[in-house]
Amino acid sequence: MHNTAVILAAGLGTRMKSSRPKVLHHIAGRPMLAHLLAACKTAFAATVVVTGPDMDEVARAAAPHPTVIQRERLGTAHAALAAADHFGAGAVTLVYGDNPLVTGPTLQRLGARLGAGDAALVLLGTRPPEPGAFGRIIGPAGFAERIVEFADATEAERAIGLCNVGGFSAAAADMRRWLGSIGNDNAKGEYYLTDLVAVARAEGASVAVVEAPWDECRGVNSRAELAAAEAAMQSRLRAAALAAGVTMTAPETVFLAADTALAADVTIEPHVVFGPGVTVGPDVTIRAFSHLEGCAISAGAIIGPYARLRPGSDIGAGAHVGNFVELKAARLGAGAKANHLTYLGDAEIGPRANIGAGTITCNYDGFAKHRTTIGADAFIGSDVALIAPVSVGDRAIIAAGSVITDPVAADALALARGRQVEKPGRAAELRMTKGKR
Amino acid sequence: MHNTAVILAAGLGTRMKSSRPKVLHHIAGRPMLAHLLAACKTAFAATVVVTGPDMDEVARAAAPHPTVIQRERLGTAHAALAAADHFGAGAVTLVYGDNPLVTGPTLQRLGARLGAGDAALVLLGTRPPEPGAFGRIIGPAGFAERIVEFADATEAERAIGLCNVGGFSAAAADMRRWLGSIGNDNAKGEYYLTDLVAVARAEGASVAVVEAPWDECRGVNSRAELAAAEAAMQSRLRAAALAAGVTMTAPETVFLAADTALAADVTIEPHVVFGPGVTVGPDVTIRAFSHLEGCAISAGAIIGPYARLRPGSDIGAGAHVGNFVELKAARLGAGAKANHLTYLGDAEIGPRANIGAGTITCNYDGFAKHRTTIGADAFIGSDVALIAPVSVGDRAIIAAGSVITDPVAADALALARGRQVEKPGRAAELRMTKGKR
Amino acid sequence: MHNTAVILAAGLGTRMKSSRPKVLHHIAGRPMLAHLLAACKTAFAATVVVTGPDMDEVARAAAPHPTVIQRERLGTAHAALAAADHFGAGAVTLVYGDNPLVTGPTLQRLGARLGAGDAALVLLGTRPPEPGAFGRIIGPAGFAERIVEFADATEAERAIGLCNVGGFSAAAADMRRWLGSIGNDNAKGEYYLTDLVAVARAEGASVAVVEAPWDECRGVNSRAELAAAEAAMQSRLRAAALAAGVTMTAPETVFLAADTALAADVTIEPHVVFGPGVTVGPDVTIRAFSHLEGCAISAGAIIGPYARLRPGSDIGAGAHVGNFVELKAARLGAGAKANHLTYLGDAEIGPRANIGAGTITCNYDGFAKHRTTIGADAFIGSDVALIAPVSVGDRAIIAAGSVITDPVAADALALARGRQVEKPGRAAELRMTKGKR
Repeated sequence: MHNTAVILAAGLGTRMKSSRPKVLHHIAGRPMLAHLLAACKTAFAATVVVTGPDMDEVARAAAPHPTVIQRERLGTAHAALAAADHFGAGAVTLVYGDNPLVTGPTLQRLGARLGAGDAALVLLGTRPPEPGAFGRIIGPAGFAERIVEFADATEAERAIGLCNVGGFSAAAADMRRWLGSIGNDNAKGEYYLTDLVAVARAEGASVAVVEAPWDECRGVNSRAELAAAEAAMQSRLRAAALAAGVTMTAPETVFLAADTALAADVTIEPHVVFGPGVTVGPDVTIRAFSHLEGCAISAGAIIGPYARLRPGSDIGAGAHVGNFVELKAARLGAGAKANHLTYLGDAEIGPRANIGAGTITCNYDGFAKHRTTIGADAFIGSDVALIAPVSVGDRAIIAAGSVITDPVAADALALARGRQVEKPGRAAELRMTKGKR
Repeated sequence: MHNTAVILAAGLGTRMKSSRPKVLHHIAGRPMLAHLLAACKTAFAATVVVTGPDMDEVARAAAPHPTVIQRERLGTAHAALAAADHFGAGAVTLVYGDNPLVTGPTLQRLGARLGAGDAALVLLGTRPPEPGAFGRIIGPAGFAERIVEFADATEAERAIGLCNVGGFSAAAADMRRWLGSIGNDNAKGEYYLTDLVAVARAEGASVAVVEAPWDECRGVNSRAELAAAEAAMQSRLRAAALAAGVTMTAPETVFLAADTALAADVTIEPHVVFGPGVTVGPDVTIRAFSHLEGCAISAGAIIGPYARLRPGSDIGAGAHVGNFVELKAARLGAGAKANHLTYLGDAEIGPRANIGAGTITCNYDGFAKHRTTIGADAFIGSDVALIAPVSVGDRAIIAAGSVITDPVAADALALARGRQVEKPGRAAELRMTKGKR
Repeated sequence: MHNTAVILAAGLGTRMKSSRPKVLHHIAGRPMLAHLLAACKTAFAATVVVTGPDMDEVARAAAPHPTVIQRERLGTAHAALAAADHFGAGAVTLVYGDNPLVTGPTLQRLGARLGAGDAALVLLGTRPPEPGAFGRIIGPAGFAERIVEFADATEAERAIGLCNVGGFSAAAADMRRWLGSIGNDNAKGEYYLTDLVAVARAEGASVAVVEAPWDECRGVNSRAELAAAEAAMQSRLRAAALAAGVTMTAPETVFLAADTALAADVTIEPHVVFGPGVTVGPDVTIRAFSHLEGCAISAGAIIGPYARLRPGSDIGAGAHVGNFVELKAARLGAGAKANHLTYLGDAEIGPRANIGAGTITCNYDGFAKHRTTIGADAFIGSDVALIAPVSVGDRAIIAAGSVITDPVAADALALARGRQVEKPGRAAELRMTKGKR
């Protein structure tokens, strides 16, 4: 059956105080919307996103999923109805774009519950630790008679812990009809999705409730809630990594991206940040204060402390990247070392090459980027500038302090530096003249 | 009415195990005393600080507020009385110097309560999560009959959660008279401020209680309590930043100073430290592991990761400061970039200039500091040393690896480096001679 | 009396998903086993470690303590019995190798309880916050009648909070006899140490219980539990440092090693990592993002931010090590400064010497490491490469940007850099040719 998800992402998110659309704020290295799209992909054949006017950025982030625009902001039910042409033939599930932590399995349970046949509408419920102002779900266990808004709830109803935070599934035809029946006879004159329960019940339809843990159901309406959602997602990612055999001295100081791939027996010291697109092989050690994005690290490598791997870095097996070293679009061969104060950009370093402290690939001449190639077993002395495009042959040696502008042949030694001159007693004279420092 | 605050800062703080006076230990980048002075400034016309002998440092930190010295340490009431000449004509409020988190609004409420006319003494009360050994406030709601020390309290009294942690307001004449009436007939022979309640009640005066949250009332008597107070203050500062529209991926890893000014849509990655005096404009991104003090960052700039901005740094709109880059007393023009392994000290960098990796302004010659000036659109190649005082003209290019000692004209190209020499096969010979590395 | 500890370290730790033996996973900078050995050393005359086959690494880590190998994995009692030849004449205490947080004083209490004479077996008990599936200790206060496994426990027994997590003391002869009496008539056919209670009780012996806090009794069976044990140990170490007069702005972001030695009035900013072997003198400030291992820092020094001190670093009184500076096997004299982007390896720096930004000791020539010696009051300009072996005399000055290959005499000035050449208008021409950048 061709089931469809509708993500409601038209909200302005004024409490975020941001010029950026709410669903494009990031969690674990990618937009909230991307998390929802990924979860929907595992549970539905198609996903459509409802955006608001002037939210082209959201449409671009949703692609290749289709988007429809809610022209006027007349409430969540009105937004859902804007997507009615995309409902398809199977079940339709409506989720809020600012509930980014819901998982694929939970979304699948919504549809599966519908399939049981004893309910025509399925509602997602959760028990927040502080239910506060959430609408309460009233009904016998597993079912909803109605949703009562906090303001309208009695003391007894307020004491109920089960709350509605969005998430509705129904057959497309039902959903279309019910959404159309929702009225706007309320203070703000808006069409509210929570009224789905009332209109379905009015038809005599049974409404089931699928419960999910609070951490999947958190909404993001402010920067503080964004930070709380990030924290919940980080806990989830860290727990998965630990369970897979990763050592983290202090998991609470390590920040993972949603797609971080860590092999068993990886060790991560405190204070490490992973951006998107990082793959780490077995027995790799990532030392403190490292920052990794878009890079691959092979088995047994040692990274950091204070290593910064930028997109396109590829670290060979057993290679070392040390402190205050930055790599960008650079491949470091197996067993090669770049341990101190170095910038390797647009570079190819052969296996077992040794890159001395303070080495800099001068990859940009102000007009274009150029490549540096260093051969296997080459030795680059400390404080060497390699003016790209340039190549250093296998086993060649570059003397410390050299500025290399021309290619160096295999097995050659290259030097490019000034000759030392000494002026005896000159320092003492300077002190006399300029005064004691 | 000319109201006065008296900060009692004469305590030795022996449990701190420090040679530094207790009130000069820092929270959120400034001394505890400075926090109290700032809060008092919003609530009182004048503030006077009571210090002990040999605490000139505290007097300097209190300036321009006057200080009086409590010559002998005979208790808190004795200390307060030392300031009697400064009580002025209005109300007097006594606060402890080691309760640094109390806010201006709370202090104002103390005075306002006095103004209500139904109480001649107002007492600050709080409900600590672990009331432990604090003195309990006994009395009907909103009033104090007496303060009972924990040691003297009955079980029923100990069960009372409302505690006294300092903070007393009264008319100057009352305060002066009551302080003078307090005796020292107790185990230590000291004059205790908490006896204010007893002497006021003995006169038949009514004593009111103003409650404040525990986080405002924490005392600092040990390094552990100092750390706890810092944590409470950081929570307060982070919450304010989030509410103002700042994104923090992991607020608990970001440390703010009391005066950090962050515009809306600033993004702060994990592990960032702000020292005092930082102002950040809108849409700025501060990446992980950055450290900022005394600097201004204009709209749209990108800072870090691993950027260190020291006092006097001024980052223009849309400028980039990258990894392992330090700026000190340096202005980076709009759109300029200094992205890798660079030190810019005492420097003026023009708009859109590009500072290559490994660039160093050699601002100190062992005798004095000198300035470096780089023009608009200039291109400084990688690994360049600029020996200050020196200037590089607009649009000039400095070749990578150069040591620049003389001024470079606008539109000129400057080089200063050794010529490359190659010794074919010499690396192979070295390996033969010295053995395989 | 010659008392003996037996550490049971033969477990495979499959839930760790690691190729490394469980007891060799690290906490606070050293293997779990090392923590236990250190605690045992304070409480017992001898310690023996039971390992499994193919665990030579564990034996090496245990040395000089003797190890015995449990050839077949037939249960904890069987493992303990493998060490029977080492039980000696006094009391024997059995502890699990994966309970690394138990302290020496707690172990001493086990033995002392035995000495009281009213119990022939002493058992370690604790009250976990979530007792879950632990075996419950049944008996009158301070004594055990039996240990009931969770699966076999009644509801009333499960409600008991006192649990057994290993730790047994008895006279050697009793222990030997009881271990020999334990049977394997259970589902897995293994010999369980917890049956000690039953066999001792069957003889009519009294079994006493010594309670310890949960944080000492945590077991480590997974990476998540390893992280939790690390967190518990860090809390312990941080609390001890704070109590000793160390200021930590954010203790939860500072990671200490078990042997970190911090004097009073040391200040540690957020985000600092200590590896093993660090000693810090009084009034030292360690700024944010610093990483220290195997180094000594004398009074009044200022380290960081972003300082990395590797093993063998020795920082003199009042010296400064600044940002992006790495030291390895280097001594920095009193009052000397190395403040920016510097690598000092295998070096001796005299007092009050000034090491300019971007200085690199080129200590490795691809074949061997060499030393650099810099005299008192020497001034090394910025961006200098010192090609070791090399020496710079007292008070000598090295011009910025120099590559120094030959020794420099005291009071001399040395230069080694290219001469500056300017090509007027050449930058403008390049822009014409290559297109606007």
